[in-house]
Amino acid sequence: MVLSPLLKARQKYPLRLPQILQELDSLMFSKGLSKEKPEIQALFPHMLGYPLLKGEKTARRKSHPFTVGVVLSGGQAAGGHNVIVGLFDALKQMHAGSALLGFLNGPSGIVEGKFKHLEQKELENFRNAGGFDLIGSGRTKIETPEQLQKSLEVVKSHKIDALVVIGGDDSNTNAALLAEYFLKNGCKTQVIGVPKTIDGDLQNNFVDISFGFDTACKTYSEMIGNIARDALSAKKYTHFIKLMGRSASHIALECALQTQPNLTLIAEEIAQEKKSLQQIGEEIADLIIKRAEMGKNYGIILIPEGLIEAVEEMNSLFSELNTLLASEEIQEIDVKEIRWKMQNFLQGPSLKTFTFLPEEIQLQIISDRDPHGNIQVAHIDTEKLLIEIVSKILKQRDFQGKFSPVSHFFGYEGRAGFPSNFDATYCYALGFTAAALIQEGVTGYMACVTHLKKQPEDWDVYGLPLLSLMHLEMRKGKQKPVIAKALVDLKGKPFQFFNNHREEWMVKDDYQFPGPMQFFGEESLTNSVPRIVSLQAH
Amino acid sequence: MVLSPLLKARQKYPLRLPQILQELDSLMFSKGLSKEKPEIQALFPHMLGYPLLKGEKTARRKSHPFTVGVVLSGGQAAGGHNVIVGLFDALKQMHAGSALLGFLNGPSGIVEGKFKHLEQKELENFRNAGGFDLIGSGRTKIETPEQLQKSLEVVKSHKIDALVVIGGDDSNTNAALLAEYFLKNGCKTQVIGVPKTIDGDLQNNFVDISFGFDTACKTYSEMIGNIARDALSAKKYTHFIKLMGRSASHIALECALQTQPNLTLIAEEIAQEKKSLQQIGEEIADLIIKRAEMGKNYGIILIPEGLIEAVEEMNSLFSELNTLLASEEIQEIDVKEIRWKMQNFLQGPSLKTFTFLPEEIQLQIISDRDPHGNIQVAHIDTEKLLIEIVSKILKQRDFQGKFSPVSHFFGYEGRAGFPSNFDATYCYALGFTAAALIQEGVTGYMACVTHLKKQPEDWDVYGLPLLSLMHLEMRKGKQKPVIAKALVDLKGKPFQFFNNHREEWMVKDDYQFPGPMQFFGEESLTNSVPRIVSLQAH
Repeated sequence: MVLSPLLKARQKYPLRLPQILQELDSLMFSKGLSKEKPEIQALFPHMLGYPLLKGEKTARRKSHPFTVGVVLSGGQAAGGHNVIVGLFDALKQMHAGSALLGFLNGPSGIVEGKFKHLEQKELENFRNAGGFDLIGSGRTKIETPEQLQKSLEVVKSHKIDALVVIGGDDSNTNAALLAEYFLKNGCKTQVIGVPKTIDGDLQNNFVDISFGFDTACKTYSEMIGNIARDALSAKKYTHFIKLMGRSASHIALECALQTQPNLTLIAEEIAQEKKSLQQIGEEIADLIIKRAEMGKNYGIILIPEGLIEAVEEMNSLFSELNTLLASEEIQEIDVKEIRWKMQNFLQGPSLKTFTFLPEEIQLQIISDRDPHGNIQVAHIDTEKLLIEIVSKILKQRDFQGKFSPVSHFFGYEGRAGFPSNFDATYCYALGFTAAALIQEGVTGYMACVTHLKKQPEDWDVYGLPLLSLMHLEMRKGKQKPVIAKALVDLKGKPFQFFNNHREEWMVKDDYQFPGPMQFFGEESLTNSVPRIVSLQAH
Repeated sequence: MVLSPLLKARQKYPLRLPQILQELDSLMFSKGLSKEKPEIQALFPHMLGYPLLKGEKTARRKSHPFTVGVVLSGGQAAGGHNVIVGLFDALKQMHAGSALLGFLNGPSGIVEGKFKHLEQKELENFRNAGGFDLIGSGRTKIETPEQLQKSLEVVKSHKIDALVVIGGDDSNTNAALLAEYFLKNGCKTQVIGVPKTIDGDLQNNFVDISFGFDTACKTYSEMIGNIARDALSAKKYTHFIKLMGRSASHIALECALQTQPNLTLIAEEIAQEKKSLQQIGEEIADLIIKRAEMGKNYGIILIPEGLIEAVEEMNSLFSELNTLLASEEIQEIDVKEIRWKMQNFLQGPSLKTFTFLPEEIQLQIISDRDPHGNIQVAHIDTEKLLIEIVSKILKQRDFQGKFSPVSHFFGYEGRAGFPSNFDATYCYALGFTAAALIQEGVTGYMACVTHLKKQPEDWDVYGLPLLSLMHLEMRKGKQKPVIAKALVDLKGKPFQFFNNHREEWMVKDDYQFPGPMQFFGEESLTNSVPRIVSLQAH
């Protein structure tokens, strides 16, 4: 492995630690309140009443060696390696005899007992580096009785004291199930979750933001700012930029705050106001026309990945189609045939919605299905769909000006790059916090580092009972215990700030150009927190 | 205008200057050889025999005030603002009474006499900043007798001593035409060109690389590296990444050297080896299968924008279609109809090529035409076309492994961002060199700064007669004097280095992760030159 100059320089970057984590042997957790929803209590009988834990200073105590397993679960998020490095450094500080095993390629590595011993020397190459390639990741869920049993056998046979699961909402739900299963079976292996996801939909009073979000948004904002400056210079293109982020629009909102584009669609708002695709198209067309009247034949429009699901008519269409496409009769027909015969299959509003869509999107919806036969909503080119709709509306309105749309999608670019200084520092602290919770002997907790607006030395650390985050939700026709996704709060300060400025941003070109992330130099350049965090109330 | 923290910090970044440019009052140019192709001599009778000029130290001399016009021509390239800032600083150093006028929105600003006075205070906000938004750019060519006449009137009426044209090959050709026209009409206004283009196709013995190329490649390489690290972590996607760059593949080659992907197509090589789309598809399929056998269901493939034109069969199809689609008869038929009836219109090899293309690409080719009715070759989604072709081949070969392709196109992201330190420094020196050539009293020259591999203080500066770059070429059916585009030299050292390593890169995952451009800190991180420059012989 030849290290790039930046990889080498990043290895030497000094990571700051919260004061409370600087001496692990004098850290203990004080107990706070406990709260779980009654509906989920029956499902986790062994984990009831776990209190909130807050890291506090105490008298020195002696630790003993731990054998800990760590696993990366789900999509990449910058900083994952630093959680592992932090966990390793903390375990070694607690006791030189501790060992860290990295389960390979996600939770399936636990089930299959595939892991590698992580050692100082190898880890140094991953300090402050992006990606999840040290041990890989995966999307397997440990759910079936066989999987749970296998996992139990693996942790037992390798005498694993604790398992650290680095993942998003679903992976942390899975961590809770595993913790309960271990307890039920008298296994003492602790399970600790770490909040990861670029989407930012794992947020609560103790998780200001999940890790990876900051780097993803800064990477996308670099590109958006570059494109905005290009648009402002060339004055001839309207850029439709779709951003990753699944159902929630946190990424689109954060990038809007960082770059101040002319329009940003927020899925949560569209859902609340029950807007149709036609209405969204009309609003964009209004903007194009208004700007054209000012002599501005260019613009920047941000589109969250979750937009399409937030449109009620599309959601109805999807569920109708999912049932339809699952039928055996239809499986045998060619997709192009299906499209032609849609009036035989759909009726009423869904037929109308389907007919409204451009041909390519119709074909894409019908042909691109996941292994369960479901429509791959995330694959739909919403940015191109909107361009088609807007073009049609502008034609209908006899718009005589210039409209040259260009589409973009940013996603994979922001998940595995070098973590920002914020993510690097935050993740290292998360690794330490997970180790401290292991030392505390608890299970079924999420490692939390809070007050991220402050300087790292002043951050607080918590153990948050996973159960306190869970509720019941319909998933594939069944009530399941899950961690609710945090959506954009339309009454929250970040959205309100956006709302107060967006009219200005529509017509004035108040674009901001954040540029490439800087790792070295002035504080103001190198140590910013996400805007939605700096605007948070708490 | 609210400045981002990086914009503010960049303003203060100290720009290094070549030794020779540090004292403009003791700089003069010594005369070298003159060489023009006989074929173009008749077209530029007033500019014959201009010698190469080399900047050298001399005794101090006194300068006088100049009124200079500057114009940005063509697509954005990072560093354009620094050329203007450098020009301004140099003119003011030469004489405080000098004035700089910025013509607005490209060469049309000259024809229409639209400009603004550039002043120190405003310029400070654009120092080391990206974009062309200070004065805008445009693609108008000053070619017709009326346009030339108008331009002459404008420079005369505003007593403009010299005009600096910042642009690519075509814009510098235009600068030569303008210089000739001014001379012919007894107008003393000098015309100086500055070599700009991200494509890197303006290269010769005195232009190591055009400005903007470095920033574009570093920006794309950041993204490619991020995606590569994501691929290496997720282990499930094959990314097809198309890169801007028109006919030449310099950008693809440079990004390949920076990131070491599994496959990089080089248009010049494909043209030389007369490869068909089918052959290219087969080679990619070979790679996919080979890697799948190694358990690697992921990969990174770079595709230059110019690929499609480099495929002979496509080129024939395009020229046949361009003639066909221009016919009046066909103008009235709906594009979908045209597609269906193509066997009536095309024959032999072109019909075969057309039939080989996926439906979406067929429609795209027919429907997306420029104002002259020509096919917009640059708009063709080559990355998606290749995915379709490869998928078909894998199916034919009964490939049982996983192939999940994802497509990307990077272009606008890299043209207008913050210039790299290299581009910032290079451009500032280009501005100074242009000023020095104005002081020297010459016209029809390109400002050149060479030996860019060395430290900036050791760079040399030249005035290169524009005529020495020109030859005759068929353009729209007529022989025209143009500056030949520099293509990738398959015998040159950069390509040879790539060629010596590419087999290794195919199977090993030797991905490099350059990360975001760094502006502050260690030399090795902040002051690299393009790889193709560091590998150049001269």
